[in-house]
Amino acid sequence: MTTHFFCFPIEGSVYVPRIFTYQELLALPSKTIKIVLECAGNKRALFHPNTYGEQWKEGAIGQAYWKGVSLTTLLQYTGVHHSAREVVVEGYDTGPRTDMEGTFRYVRSLPLHKALHPDTIIAYELNGRPIPYKHGYPLRLLVPQWYAMASVKWIKKITVIDDTFQGPFQTTDYVYYPHKNNDVGKHPVTTMNSNSTIQQPLHLSTLSQGAHLIKGIAWTGEGTTTAVDISIDNGHTWLPASLQQNSAEPYSWVRWSFRWHAEKKGEYTLLSRATDSLGRVQPPIAVWNRKGYGYNALCMTKVKIE
Amino acid sequence: MTTHFFCFPIEGSVYVPRIFTYQELLALPSKTIKIVLECAGNKRALFHPNTYGEQWKEGAIGQAYWKGVSLTTLLQYTGVHHSAREVVVEGYDTGPRTDMEGTFRYVRSLPLHKALHPDTIIAYELNGRPIPYKHGYPLRLLVPQWYAMASVKWIKKITVIDDTFQGPFQTTDYVYYPHKNNDVGKHPVTTMNSNSTIQQPLHLSTLSQGAHLIKGIAWTGEGTTTAVDISIDNGHTWLPASLQQNSAEPYSWVRWSFRWHAEKKGEYTLLSRATDSLGRVQPPIAVWNRKGYGYNALCMTKVKIE
Repeated sequence: MTTHFFCFPIEGSVYVPRIFTYQELLALPSKTIKIVLECAGNKRALFHPNTYGEQWKEGAIGQAYWKGVSLTTLLQYTGVHHSAREVVVEGYDTGPRTDMEGTFRYVRSLPLHKALHPDTIIAYELNGRPIPYKHGYPLRLLVPQWYAMASVKWIKKITVIDDTFQGPFQTTDYVYYPHKNNDVGKHPVTTMNSNSTIQQPLHLSTLSQGAHLIKGIAWTGEGTTTAVDISIDNGHTWLPASLQQNSAEPYSWVRWSFRWHAEKKGEYTLLSRATDSLGRVQPPIAVWNRKGYGYNALCMTKVKIE
Repeated sequence: MTTHFFCFPIEGSVYVPRIFTYQELLALPSKTIKIVLECAGNKRALFHPNTYGEQWKEGAIGQAYWKGVSLTTLLQYTGVHHSAREVVVEGYDTGPRTDMEGTFRYVRSLPLHKALHPDTIIAYELNGRPIPYKHGYPLRLLVPQWYAMASVKWIKKITVIDDTFQGPFQTTDYVYYPHKNNDVGKHPVTTMNSNSTIQQPLHLSTLSQGAHLIKGIAWTGEGTTTAVDISIDNGHTWLPASLQQNSAEPYSWVRWSFRWHAEKKGEYTLLSRATDSLGRVQPPIAVWNRKGYGYNALCMTKVKIE
């Protein structure tokens, strides 16, 4: 498809169903937001017992500047019925599933309050250029603070509905199942957990005696990261890291660093622990769930000083 | 440096020390060999207890066509004293170490019998082109069957010696230390162990019921791979995989495949086990060593049929 002729409808429980063209979108008021996108399965490989799915370690996260139009701006054109409860966004991607017969399009919904948040945008640029194909060209929904499954790529259609959407990527996948063999207590994956990653030094690396900079990132899906504490003795004692915060970028990760003078040879277990403005602290052990979502236990890096 | 003027000496315990130019090398009889290069630390991350070093899983291995001149051809120009025991190859790369003061060049030796083997070559092409810089441009030693630390990049100098080379990359690194806290039983890393990797399906992936192709590679550092057996029940029963062998390429890996009809839902632990022509079989548990070299336990992949 050429973007010149690309368009998508907003329909369903609205006053004026309408088709928006790509060109119209470019002409509407835009905003550019730096947003962390973290896969709900980031760090899945760290769960014990193992969980099935892509064995992500720390790498299923990124951040970028996304430019687009608030979804709420578009919904002002169509209006939304009083009975509306959710906004359903359908992507062009489709495929089979291992657990059901047939093929399925990727479709997800947002509760109305999140769909109407001014920072929930229909993006057409990533880092100042048209969105690369694999990241959702030509249009992608961006939902700050939610795990990235909410940010539907390759938008095909938007539908406002009066009930609760029940597609498999909403009710089967991206659901926390607390138990291995039954579905008791299942609840949907939404906002990101308070989390941090040690980027330097590398796990199980060997360092010389002397000064070393421990550094990394921290992020959260509600409020902002307010503190990162570091332990070099496997959690017995903690000291605060320095944060590079930028209040103009509430949806970006925070870089942190900690100066360590490693005097004695030996093996050390370094830990980082982020706290957000809602008081959510990374736990010592992540809450296990069958599909391996939302891992956010303390980040652990072992090093040897020799 | 420009390759047109590049040259390196062969000196030490030889009759006629000599400088070889890159141009001379190109004019000498060449051979092209498909060679597996496997890092001695490949699969290090799978050792229990953990070992320090780059946390490789299955990816620290590759194969390519290398074109060059047999080292033994060059040594015919210089001659080798009767007292000679080893050939020392020095690279241009240099740097600090965490365990010793000072900077060190990367230098390794080969025993005379391996240096004189006609398939030990000074290579100047990788896959039909000049060797890319990161792979050793302009000249790299290639030592088939040995772990890749032997294949010295960026050759600077070759020296024939009458004794045993003692550089840190020979006597400290690339040494098997069987014990955590003492050096009893230490011995050098040389040839690759009999090994295999399951490439498909991915570990902890979910598959539908029905037919699946399990496939992967197998390789060894002595003789050739003669069999790969597969278990789909965590080692209780084994069946042979089909091998795609090519006797004209004794130093390449062997591709293998196994058709599996997965009838029953559930979790399965797939294992692959290679055997080489010297009767070396992959063990259930790899021989632990402090620096995490030579991991070759059975390759394990868990899948869920749903």
